Amino acid sequence: MTNVITHPAWLPAAAWRPIGTRRVRVDVPGTVRDEVEAACAAHGGRLVTAGEADLTLTLTGTGHDGYAITRDDRGTTVTAATHAGLVHGLFATVRMGESAFTPGPRVASRPAFPRRMLDHWDNVDVHPVMGQVERGYAGGSLFWSAGALRTADLPRIRDYARLLASVGINAVALNNVNVHATEARLLTDRLPEIELLAEPFRRYGIRVHLAVSFAAPMLLGGLDTADPLDPAVRSWWALTLGEVCERIPDFGGVLVKADSEGQPGPFAYGRTHADGANMLAEALAPHGATVHWRAFVYDHRQDWRDRSTDRARAAYDHFTPLDGAFADTVTVQVKHGPMDFQPREPVSPVLAAMPRTRLALEVQATQEYTGQQKHVCYLAPMWSEILRFRPRGDDGPPIAGTVGELVAVANTGDDPFWTGHPLAQANLYAFGRLAWDPSLTPAEILDEWITLTFDPDDGTRAGLHDVMDDSWRTYESYTAPLGVGFMVRPGHHYGPDVDGYEYTPWGTYHFADRDGVGVDRTVATGTGFAGLYPYPWNGVYESLTDCPDELLLFLHHVPYTHVLRSGRTVIQHIYDTHFDGVTRVEAARERWRRLALDPDVHARVAALLDEQVRSAIEWRDQINTYFFRKSGIGDTHGRMIY
Amino acid sequence: MTNVITHPAWLPAAAWRPIGTRRVRVDVPGTVRDEVEAACAAHGGRLVTAGEADLTLTLTGTGHDGYAITRDDRGTTVTAATHAGLVHGLFATVRMGESAFTPGPRVASRPAFPRRMLDHWDNVDVHPVMGQVERGYAGGSLFWSAGALRTADLPRIRDYARLLASVGINAVALNNVNVHATEARLLTDRLPEIELLAEPFRRYGIRVHLAVSFAAPMLLGGLDTADPLDPAVRSWWALTLGEVCERIPDFGGVLVKADSEGQPGPFAYGRTHADGANMLAEALAPHGATVHWRAFVYDHRQDWRDRSTDRARAAYDHFTPLDGAFADTVTVQVKHGPMDFQPREPVSPVLAAMPRTRLALEVQATQEYTGQQKHVCYLAPMWSEILRFRPRGDDGPPIAGTVGELVAVANTGDDPFWTGHPLAQANLYAFGRLAWDPSLTPAEILDEWITLTFDPDDGTRAGLHDVMDDSWRTYESYTAPLGVGFMVRPGHHYGPDVDGYEYTPWGTYHFADRDGVGVDRTVATGTGFAGLYPYPWNGVYESLTDCPDELLLFLHHVPYTHVLRSGRTVIQHIYDTHFDGVTRVEAARERWRRLALDPDVHARVAALLDEQVRSAIEWRDQINTYFFRKSGIGDTHGRMIY
Repeated sequence: MTNVITHPAWLPAAAWRPIGTRRVRVDVPGTVRDEVEAACAAHGGRLVTAGEADLTLTLTGTGHDGYAITRDDRGTTVTAATHAGLVHGLFATVRMGESAFTPGPRVASRPAFPRRMLDHWDNVDVHPVMGQVERGYAGGSLFWSAGALRTADLPRIRDYARLLASVGINAVALNNVNVHATEARLLTDRLPEIELLAEPFRRYGIRVHLAVSFAAPMLLGGLDTADPLDPAVRSWWALTLGEVCERIPDFGGVLVKADSEGQPGPFAYGRTHADGANMLAEALAPHGATVHWRAFVYDHRQDWRDRSTDRARAAYDHFTPLDGAFADTVTVQVKHGPMDFQPREPVSPVLAAMPRTRLALEVQATQEYTGQQKHVCYLAPMWSEILRFRPRGDDGPPIAGTVGELVAVANTGDDPFWTGHPLAQANLYAFGRLAWDPSLTPAEILDEWITLTFDPDDGTRAGLHDVMDDSWRTYESYTAPLGVGFMVRPGHHYGPDVDGYEYTPWGTYHFADRDGVGVDRTVATGTGFAGLYPYPWNGVYESLTDCPDELLLFLHHVPYTHVLRSGRTVIQHIYDTHFDGVTRVEAARERWRRLALDPDVHARVAALLDEQVRSAIEWRDQINTYFFRKSGIGDTHGRMIY
Repeated sequence: MTNVITHPAWLPAAAWRPIGTRRVRVDVPGTVRDEVEAACAAHGGRLVTAGEADLTLTLTGTGHDGYAITRDDRGTTVTAATHAGLVHGLFATVRMGESAFTPGPRVASRPAFPRRMLDHWDNVDVHPVMGQVERGYAGGSLFWSAGALRTADLPRIRDYARLLASVGINAVALNNVNVHATEARLLTDRLPEIELLAEPFRRYGIRVHLAVSFAAPMLLGGLDTADPLDPAVRSWWALTLGEVCERIPDFGGVLVKADSEGQPGPFAYGRTHADGANMLAEALAPHGATVHWRAFVYDHRQDWRDRSTDRARAAYDHFTPLDGAFADTVTVQVKHGPMDFQPREPVSPVLAAMPRTRLALEVQATQEYTGQQKHVCYLAPMWSEILRFRPRGDDGPPIAGTVGELVAVANTGDDPFWTGHPLAQANLYAFGRLAWDPSLTPAEILDEWITLTFDPDDGTRAGLHDVMDDSWRTYESYTAPLGVGFMVRPGHHYGPDVDGYEYTPWGTYHFADRDGVGVDRTVATGTGFAGLYPYPWNGVYESLTDCPDELLLFLHHVPYTHVLRSGRTVIQHIYDTHFDGVTRVEAARERWRRLALDPDVHARVAALLDEQVRSAIEWRDQINTYFFRKSGIGDTHGRMIY
């Protein structure tokens, strides 16, 4: 294997001391016993097979993948109905630390979402533009390098699976949803690579999924069509996927990006997305595997002159008419916002509009639009807001209650810290924890992560909270204002370029002119997007006075002098938040300097904070200058605008 | 050899008929006799060695590379003092057609510029961003493909040398001025490739030059410095270049882009560009070879917030203090404008400010900023304007009289039409002809090219003039207005992006705000650039009322309501020219449709005109919309602005 020194993330040796110093009984062979054995070997405890034990892990009954922990004078017992549940119970015990061994109330936990999935956008070949990992900011792929499987690095992949399982993730899609020619072949002649990769994940109860090309019957099968209603196409998929499931008995299923940004799909044959997805579901269902079908479908060759087409409506318009038409084993995977992973978007109206369809909420752990793992940006507050959002108002269910699964685009790679920015590990951690229990607060999740990762003193803990707790809102403050989004450099999406996408075919406009800015998405005078929400949000978003400030420019085109709910004008809000954002990043850098932490982590984060300060200043100055040049309205505080 | 069908350009078989049908005597062996022999073989004439001849080509006397042609009742005689002169005389006879064989006044011609050079920006390896040919729009390189010399295609390179010689070009730099690692080695272990390439050019009297890395002593020589005053460095260059000149006796010399856009140079050692250039000159002079040293030196890591630094001043500020310090065999190669090959710039003030330095005027035949050989853009009118410009007013010499050489960046590649767009051949033709005789008018040069290439009827000739004569001003009209420049997509430079470079480190700004646009380069209130010109142009450019409209925004920041010398406001000029430009391109497309021409040429140009119309509309709409959104001032004619 490659001699890579990887950071232990939130599972350092110290985290295992409470278990590893004790007498532990594990009733079943396999991963849980292996973990305990290793911990005891490291810390002086021992595995016992009979007699008194401080900790007992045991399988009992039947049911879900949750666990229960009882603590009393006779010791601590973890029970679960499945092996995966016992794995989760073991890691829950690790999280509890010493407190797992003091008497206390019984803890019983089961996952809120049965599938908690991580989607890798890894390529097999290095893509000439997108590289080894599309939108990856953590080095190369853990799985492939320059066209070849990293067989020598399978031990690291096992460590990775362990990290994922420790936070409850139980499904991983291994390859990029943009399936290029080489990657398409993972389904057929390169299937042995998937078989090999499935093994380390299987040890930790994680099923592997494969992103496939809708055109595979043509690309790989030599057919002259990929029409989902063509019998030859259906039989090719049934045969091909049957073979996959035979060789990988716990194969999770396929993930499809169809009719999107150039990927093939059912539209070419006049078929619906339900036709396409159901064909694959029919092939997979007999084997217990499923289909993830992305709802990210829009016209990426839009004419910027056409004001009637609204990309924010696209997923809704394409998919909600199909509600009820998808097979039971199809999951329609919906991005959290109607556009594309911007730092601030309204919750996608699709998530409230397909009650008869199994939906997955897709978030982006990889920080494409949130600082690319060069900026500190703890995303749990954003995700938590989304999960707690109630589309039908306070009396209706939250998003966490309307979707059946949670999916994140992975932020990991072969970087020694797994995630490039060491603090970005917290996003991976938080995703798993929220997918298990969306009632957890971002701050308590962060506190868990801090404790496990750094075992810090109180001052350091407070400092890490200071740097991270509110970092998403800080990022929002110095980038695109008031929900307008997409003021990034085209292509790489890092750093500001206010007009970068303004006249492009991507459907991402802000319509700033000398008088005002924002997209009119009202029913009364705009694209009608606001009307796609149920009551009361349709009214709230439609109303210029009720619309939350942070989404104002997503929904309304307003003069720079429009007064926000905060009492400030739009233009002054832009200036204030951009000056303030830089001040906050500078303060975070200063705070970080004073923290005593592992020197490797400290040095890496310190260097990245320098870049974050530089970048935040660039954002501040470009955004402020752009809007000053357009509006001609000065900052009321007379600060420097160029 | 590869079976490439290449277009004969302006030397089709028909062009040789007047000579090829006659009795011709050639007094010297070599290229001229070979050409005549081939022509006679094709058309039924014959080479005679004695007795009566219709045409005699003969060497006589000593002198320059010009020629004389006498025509009387006894026949036509071409005399020259050098073999290269006889080659030029032969091609002049071809250009004259049948009229070469009717009695008429003696024609004597000599080149205005002793060196007429074409610089190829060809890479050996395919550069990951720039490709095989940097800023090349005519397919791959004629010389290299994917890291290897195209030895099988040497016959085509010979055809290419013939085309170049036929318009008087006598020097070719073979490789990109941005010298990457592989290309640096052309100087040493890959020198045999240059030896091979030199041969076909030598046949036509063309010397080859090599772009070299200033850091070659370190990259290739293993030294720890490239300091031009270091004896070891000087001796390495002397030895290395001596070896080159020994193996290629007619080696032209080296071309250097130093301290520019990341290329190494003498600044790193606290030395001047004269120190660097003179070191190379010292090594080459004993062998009769020279140095071309580019004056394209500026800060490409400028802060857009810094309004005091003006890229337009850079070459002047760097080089004019060194006037007189360069060795006699150094040519300082100066781009025609102070920025970078924009469709409209003032003539570089450097060209009038270094009387004690040999200067070359560098123009760009490759259409980086003039439509990338997808748009018809006949450039001779621009080049002719530059050559005729008189920096010291009507009583002073024109640029053609102040520079010693003409250099063009090549627009050729392995495309079957040599230049991608078939009509772009005219730019290569015109460059050679203007470098031979800058008093020729663009229209008469175009007429020569049309006659040779198409041998057309009068209607077709008129149609080609309609499409091409004014195509540069048409291009200017629908792109960046009034000399402001650089409103292109960053990176590839095709198509509009008004703010694309506005907040970048490249020093290319327009400073458009809600009130006005343009760069204040006056002495009174701006960067002082206007003051770099001698009288009277310093005053003309300084004056808001005298400054020519087409350069206004290059030199002044003005309100949109400023009234131009034309009587129109700036904003109305922007609208009018952009609407008008599209109309003119549409008319050109219509005109082209009605022309009867070789079907391959016709079809290729017709398809490209469709793209040109699409692109011109995109330019029109983006530019007009951008300035309407900023200014809030409508078009007085009420035309559609988005």
